[in-house]
Amino acid sequence: MSILSQLADVLEARKSASADESYVASLYASGLSKILEKIGEEATETIIAAKDLEAGGTDQQAQLQEALVKEIADLWFHSMVALAHLELSPDDVLNELGRRFGIGGLDEKASRSTN
Amino acid sequence: MSILSQLADVLEARKSASADESYVASLYASGLSKILEKIGEEATETIIAAKDLEAGGTDQQAQLQEALVKEIADLWFHSMVALAHLELSPDDVLNELGRRFGIGGLDEKASRSTN
Amino acid sequence: MSILSQLADVLEARKSASADESYVASLYASGLSKILEKIGEEATETIIAAKDLEAGGTDQQAQLQEALVKEIADLWFHSMVALAHLELSPDDVLNELGRRFGIGGLDEKASRSTN
Amino acid sequence: MSILSQLADVLEARKSASADESYVASLYASGLSKILEKIGEEATETIIAAKDLEAGGTDQQAQLQEALVKEIADLWFHSMVALAHLELSPDDVLNELGRRFGIGGLDEKASRSTN
Repeated sequence: MSILSQLADVLEARKSASADESYVASLYASGLSKILEKIGEEATETIIAAKDLEAGGTDQQAQLQEALVKEIADLWFHSMVALAHLELSPDDVLNELGRRFGIGGLDEKASRSTN
Repeated sequence: MSILSQLADVLEARKSASADESYVASLYASGLSKILEKIGEEATETIIAAKDLEAGGTDQQAQLQEALVKEIADLWFHSMVALAHLELSPDDVLNELGRRFGIGGLDEKASRSTN
Repeated sequence: MSILSQLADVLEARKSASADESYVASLYASGLSKILEKIGEEATETIIAAKDLEAGGTDQQAQLQEALVKEIADLWFHSMVALAHLELSPDDVLNELGRRFGIGGLDEKASRSTN
Repeated sequence: MSILSQLADVLEARKSASADESYVASLYASGLSKILEKIGEEATETIIAAKDLEAGGTDQQAQLQEALVKEIADLWFHSMVALAHLELSPDDVLNELGRRFGIGGLDEKASRSTN
């Protein structure tokens, strides 16, 4: 089972956890807007970490790469909390991505015409 | 091979494509800041789509869910373009997520204490 | 009359303009979500421009400062479009700021305790 | 003296305050990235508050309007902290806005052509 599927199971199980004991349960209890605030925060932190990596020297590269990976992990994680809170799953997102790059010989542009 | 791994291969292959013919190649050519702008945009659109789903009626639910899934797909997609542009991969992000929820009996909170 | 007040008058007047002829009128016609997307975009561009200024050399400083000022102008401008669209005004925001730093000897922290 | 000018003076004076006693001084001490994170957060909260106002009923309108005004005040405030930290001022932003809407009979679109 993929990491995203396993994580989706964890997020589902957290729905019956106490908000005092689980960070995810505390997010569910706070409501959708709080979860969305986290998505906005992590997107901002991703952007800043990527700019830091771009500006950083070779000697810092591994550390700055790790910092960026952690921010993107935070961003995807909180996206998955939002999906779980709204009774959706990462498979819905992966299927959408698969559908797009399966269409027209991986022509991702064609499927984004209204974007 | 998972959808994210296949997509990572596509993104890697786009590095030798023409910016005129490929949306991804045009993003690479525009540079990191343009890719990060897209992450910011898609995070914003994810937030708006989630609020629309929250406020929408039952009759619109399927359509609003689909719209949200598409925005999160856009958000993850452009995160992956940033990763590819910076010589990183979605596996780095998935391993980070796996490491977190493998630690301490899936206690994701403990590993986020400085966040 | 202050620049913000004059600009608020312009934004009010644009409510009767054609969407084909006025950028602001086209935003009003597109609706609140489109205006909010612009706020998200301009916030992202502000963050990127500030990081570019931080990383840039002395010889680029004036140019990077100007770029940042333009992004913040875009951010404030679109905030004002949102205010106008929702029948609010920049004076509401300025009064809120004045109230905060007038309280307790300019102790802005005290008034932000729930933030 | 306008509220923004007075606030700029306060922000300048905070440069010699202790980070323990002043929220603004603590932001300066944390550095540019922390200030930019706040801009990202407040932009997100502005978007969410505006969507809440749009979805809310008439009986909640005054309260939701006030909440939105506070978020935009937070957004402008942290923009001003960034400006002060980078030795810029709100007058730079206001002059840019004035220049734009003074040009070509208030034709703000023309001046934004590359945006």
